[in-house]
Amino acid sequence: MTYCVGLKLDRGLVFASDTRTNAGLDNISTFKKLQVWEAPGDRVITLLSSGNLAITQAVISLLNEQIRSSADTSRTLMTVETMFQAARLIGSAVREVRKIDGEALEANADNFSVTFILGGQIKGEEPRLFQVYSAGNFIEVGEDTPYLQIGEHKYGKPILDRVTRTDMRLGEAAKLVLLSFDSTLRSNLSVGMPMDLLLYNADSFTADRQLRIEKDDPYFQKLSQDWSDALRDSFASMDELEV
Amino acid sequence: MTYCVGLKLDRGLVFASDTRTNAGLDNISTFKKLQVWEAPGDRVITLLSSGNLAITQAVISLLNEQIRSSADTSRTLMTVETMFQAARLIGSAVREVRKIDGEALEANADNFSVTFILGGQIKGEEPRLFQVYSAGNFIEVGEDTPYLQIGEHKYGKPILDRVTRTDMRLGEAAKLVLLSFDSTLRSNLSVGMPMDLLLYNADSFTADRQLRIEKDDPYFQKLSQDWSDALRDSFASMDELEV
Repeated sequence: MTYCVGLKLDRGLVFASDTRTNAGLDNISTFKKLQVWEAPGDRVITLLSSGNLAITQAVISLLNEQIRSSADTSRTLMTVETMFQAARLIGSAVREVRKIDGEALEANADNFSVTFILGGQIKGEEPRLFQVYSAGNFIEVGEDTPYLQIGEHKYGKPILDRVTRTDMRLGEAAKLVLLSFDSTLRSNLSVGMPMDLLLYNADSFTADRQLRIEKDDPYFQKLSQDWSDALRDSFASMDELEV
Repeated sequence: MTYCVGLKLDRGLVFASDTRTNAGLDNISTFKKLQVWEAPGDRVITLLSSGNLAITQAVISLLNEQIRSSADTSRTLMTVETMFQAARLIGSAVREVRKIDGEALEANADNFSVTFILGGQIKGEEPRLFQVYSAGNFIEVGEDTPYLQIGEHKYGKPILDRVTRTDMRLGEAAKLVLLSFDSTLRSNLSVGMPMDLLLYNADSFTADRQLRIEKDDPYFQKLSQDWSDALRDSFASMDELEV
């Protein structure tokens, strides 16, 4: 499993992903699920991935090969003019991988299962945020629900629902996302630290606010403990049910 | 879907269930999922059910027919001497229903899917809490994890994990369960109000602390609002992430 979140706020975008992959409970590893394509001053494109690791890696490799192939005059993530076109590229790559691997996966009783959160900003546009599905189609975040989750999303959703505001500072949103992860990590073994975070300031066209948060990160540990304490205190202060 | 919770505390047991059943999004109804068998002074047995409504109703009808059939000298929920034997009765009823309906359900590509939380106290024993599975086998709650959830359990689990203590008062535990339901109700349409609650005081051998909480219940509405406010305040009071 996986847990990834993307938020679209007035001040920019926040992305977070765990790093756990597993082939059964007895075979777990760490892989980066947050990819960034950057052309400082022009574009920052971020992709969070969930699902079969072989498929997500194949999609990303295809996107990178398109960029490296100089003979190729078709559009790539580094040349498309809008985030909508970037989402189309991701969708096409998903469909190409399905064409190559889909039949063999089905023959092996494996699902072709993959989901992406795509976000970023290309010069001339506002920051945008998309979710791309296994079929290669996608949706874009509007004003009503400013976040997307993929993977094991349920444990961490109540806090996002109650606290998210589009006028949050990015550091505040990062705090929120870490709490959403904390709830998930406590309940689901298939979501694991470290976490990758990217805070993208609107109109900065740079991805320099990236960090990896390890399990023993002092800020994360304190946040987790403070949150548990605060929940218990808040709980204790409310009236009991009289029956 | 469904959401039911059972807690085993030092002071007794707390049970809660929603009442929504559905056959698709466009066909929802209200059914009671909390059953109580009571012999004041001798026993209180409570059953919460999740899964195919036809199966859970068949199991409960079987259990009631055993009780009504005076010619029947075999043990029933009203005559068994321990909660372990009560759990065996539920399991046997599940297996009997599977024998009758299982094949036809499979032919119709429906799963035989049902889960119960069984709890209560029979004179001579402490209060006990069990979860009974589709196969008719079951587990009993020990000291390490004092609660059971069935149905749509993920949204409401983080708060149970952080706040549950076995030395809680029953009214305090009922408040906790309501908050766990509140998180679930916000996120999953297949879980719906009203809720049924039963607070069982250890050694009382009476089920008189029952109530149904409607959507517009003033206590529940205030609790939900206060909790949202408290979460937002706690969140605001914690340090932001510096990147």
